[in-house]
Amino acid sequence: MEMSNEQIHDIASAAWNGYQYLQKLTVRERADLMYAIAEEIEALDEELINAAHRETALPLARLQGEKGRTVHQWRSYADALRTGVYADVRIDTGDGAAKSDIRKYNKGLGPVAVFGASNFPFAFSTAGGDTASAIAAGCSVVYKEHPAHPETSRIMEHAIKRGVAKFGAPDTVFDCVKGSSNSVGETLVLNPLIKAVAFTGSFRGGKALFDLGASRSEPVPVFAEMGSVNPILALPDYLNQHGETLAAQYVASLTLGVGQFCTNPGLFIAVKGSALTLLKEGLKKAISEIGESSMLHAGICKAFQENKTILSKQPDVELLGKGVNTQEDKAGAAIYLTSGAAFLANQHLREEVFGPVGLVVECSDTDEVYAVLASVPGQLTITFAATVVDIQQNSSLLTLAQEKCGRLLFGGMPTGVEVVYAMQHGGPFPATTDSRFTSVGPDAVKRFLRPVSFQNWPNQLLPQELQDDNPLKIARIVNTVYTPE
Amino acid sequence: MEMSNEQIHDIASAAWNGYQYLQKLTVRERADLMYAIAEEIEALDEELINAAHRETALPLARLQGEKGRTVHQWRSYADALRTGVYADVRIDTGDGAAKSDIRKYNKGLGPVAVFGASNFPFAFSTAGGDTASAIAAGCSVVYKEHPAHPETSRIMEHAIKRGVAKFGAPDTVFDCVKGSSNSVGETLVLNPLIKAVAFTGSFRGGKALFDLGASRSEPVPVFAEMGSVNPILALPDYLNQHGETLAAQYVASLTLGVGQFCTNPGLFIAVKGSALTLLKEGLKKAISEIGESSMLHAGICKAFQENKTILSKQPDVELLGKGVNTQEDKAGAAIYLTSGAAFLANQHLREEVFGPVGLVVECSDTDEVYAVLASVPGQLTITFAATVVDIQQNSSLLTLAQEKCGRLLFGGMPTGVEVVYAMQHGGPFPATTDSRFTSVGPDAVKRFLRPVSFQNWPNQLLPQELQDDNPLKIARIVNTVYTPE
Repeated sequence: MEMSNEQIHDIASAAWNGYQYLQKLTVRERADLMYAIAEEIEALDEELINAAHRETALPLARLQGEKGRTVHQWRSYADALRTGVYADVRIDTGDGAAKSDIRKYNKGLGPVAVFGASNFPFAFSTAGGDTASAIAAGCSVVYKEHPAHPETSRIMEHAIKRGVAKFGAPDTVFDCVKGSSNSVGETLVLNPLIKAVAFTGSFRGGKALFDLGASRSEPVPVFAEMGSVNPILALPDYLNQHGETLAAQYVASLTLGVGQFCTNPGLFIAVKGSALTLLKEGLKKAISEIGESSMLHAGICKAFQENKTILSKQPDVELLGKGVNTQEDKAGAAIYLTSGAAFLANQHLREEVFGPVGLVVECSDTDEVYAVLASVPGQLTITFAATVVDIQQNSSLLTLAQEKCGRLLFGGMPTGVEVVYAMQHGGPFPATTDSRFTSVGPDAVKRFLRPVSFQNWPNQLLPQELQDDNPLKIARIVNTVYTPE
Repeated sequence: MEMSNEQIHDIASAAWNGYQYLQKLTVRERADLMYAIAEEIEALDEELINAAHRETALPLARLQGEKGRTVHQWRSYADALRTGVYADVRIDTGDGAAKSDIRKYNKGLGPVAVFGASNFPFAFSTAGGDTASAIAAGCSVVYKEHPAHPETSRIMEHAIKRGVAKFGAPDTVFDCVKGSSNSVGETLVLNPLIKAVAFTGSFRGGKALFDLGASRSEPVPVFAEMGSVNPILALPDYLNQHGETLAAQYVASLTLGVGQFCTNPGLFIAVKGSALTLLKEGLKKAISEIGESSMLHAGICKAFQENKTILSKQPDVELLGKGVNTQEDKAGAAIYLTSGAAFLANQHLREEVFGPVGLVVECSDTDEVYAVLASVPGQLTITFAATVVDIQQNSSLLTLAQEKCGRLLFGGMPTGVEVVYAMQHGGPFPATTDSRFTSVGPDAVKRFLRPVSFQNWPNQLLPQELQDDNPLKIARIVNTVYTPE
């Protein structure tokens, strides 16, 4: 079903009313609303899991886990909201004369357009982190359904709406626009009542929305998380000590979920030598054991096959090893090999192949590792497969890596984005369109907030967040001093 | 002097080194650097004040005050920085198994291009709030000199550089590009090493920079504060009680600094009736006592005269009263009068006339006041000249006003932007290009920060902000609980 422009306009207008309703709720009340929605999502049964499994080919266990994660997002963002951390209250009481009484808190931006991701049908789609953080901010949500999983969306939509109704909020706080053509999303983003946009997906899709948001007569912020190649830097001392386990660990991360994660480590950078030679053998063996798998949808699989072919045909790129692949419509894992010099000379090698394909870049020395890292654009993550000695001997690599990404790992693999306060799921362009924000963890709420100051208002007319006796018991900065509830 | 593209490129490249230096400083060390700069600015003598007076025509007393404000900005932003509020640390220590140890803090975006404002030669120019907040964030600054006050800029530039040298920082942490053509600023903003832009000035200038920043192959955030008409809503009960004082207060604010403030109250909205008739008499009398004054520079005065003429010729606009004006090259204050209906029908009446000109909009009732307010775009401030009863009877106006501005005043006038934590100097487009940020108060630092997470790093390799024993004694959120130093 393609919605008409009028239908989209009507939904955006209704969302304005939903936003006005949410603005009148305190942070505590919004947290309660979020709990009501979380409860409805939690109560969903096999119908949801089976629909998502049918529509995305993701395994049942993964979907069960993702459902739990989604519920956790709603509850943990609500818990954070309750503390007042996103109201971010500052009160300066002045001196009753020249210095005014000024009080500031954060309010929502307005209705937010959320675009679902195909690779997280629960955690980054209808009821995902973008929707949860917008509602936390007091923004109503108009969700643009992802065409790859309409039935999953429908079940989630109804769960949200049941939660909204049980809390007693109007149904205008959340609604969906539907249609598979780009024009549905474009019409939504250009609607003057939409005040922010959140997107998770491809660079092409995210950048198009960013440009659209900036082109409006009233520009709006567009937070697009567009993935990256998430380099692994395997440094010499670590490689000598842990090369064998690293190979297995890398292949497991590369092929997890058929390589369909924004944090999939598509790039493996190391210095050549006997340790790397051994590791390459390990990679070859490990990847050969990976079976072929269905991807999220036919379009993604087709793009994967095409991009893999393009990569394989680049000069100075050879196949290091590959997994099973007998069927055209399934993805076969593969690892390619190139040199640092070839990588530096060919910008195609810096592009993400969405799926289970890695590229090992064999560098002549750590200076070339530096040059290779310097040549890649902004990333979500960079992982140091390194010992303390490696870092101490290559501190300039750590300095450079901080400029390039949102999350730095010491050991481990970047897949697995934990939903905690300290998570930064973001990074410099083109990983996202605004490196100042995250789309995972409670801090994701910040994207949709703006401060408003009240100067010299009588106490009884102030929002509760700003009143003298702190009725909501939230943390505030009062006369420059942090004041817990 | 017009700098060449090569000179600008060299300065941006050097700024990258300055930025790398600042990134290695702790929040405490950056605060010390800021104090060193503040001391040099404070030590400037009559040479600065006289140069600025010559170049801007601003009165000596005002300039002395603005100098003090500028020093206060550096010191109060540094004080805030020291508490750790902008490091915004979150630590989740995990469980040593499935849950990782993740720690997040804010780092600088990179070198920032700062554009000076003509109306604040100290507080929003070379050593102004944008420069101070960028340095606080650990960003080096390349300042684009305002061509209206080159000598003032030079004196300030040298003061900053002395402070930088005394602290022992390299001279690359702050430098200036010079030239009066737009291309100098454009070249700077398009330089790939510039990672953010701050601007205070006209809508045309700010919007052009915003578009330029978004057009880059790596888009960068551009925070432009572009002024507004700052409506005063004079509600019936207040008008009855305080009409007389309000007239004098309004004219004083409208003509303060020859009306050359971003928060100048260009729009006065009220319901017609006997109280408004009296107030109009008061306005007429008060404005007649205002002498003519030189504006900041000839270009601003010319634009003022032109825009005033355009306003005066709009249908259903009449002159209510005016001040002295005998000389073409000086600005004469004036107040015009129109009806709510005429205002709603003519979008020219919503445009800012930069200078001492106000427009009284006489509405038939408070519903029309609502419609008039709804028709204006985003504002820095909205002022309620209202009693508690007025607000209680017109709560929808307060709700609407919150959607329209960054700062809401209850009584008083919006001119006078206090440098405190609770200040929001910003607002929805077109008041600024991003309503989520402020350009006054320590929170201005937030514009130039982005979070980075460290996952599973050994304690000794972490930035001090994130280390276990909290060596900088800053406030942090540890395992979801706020932990003062």
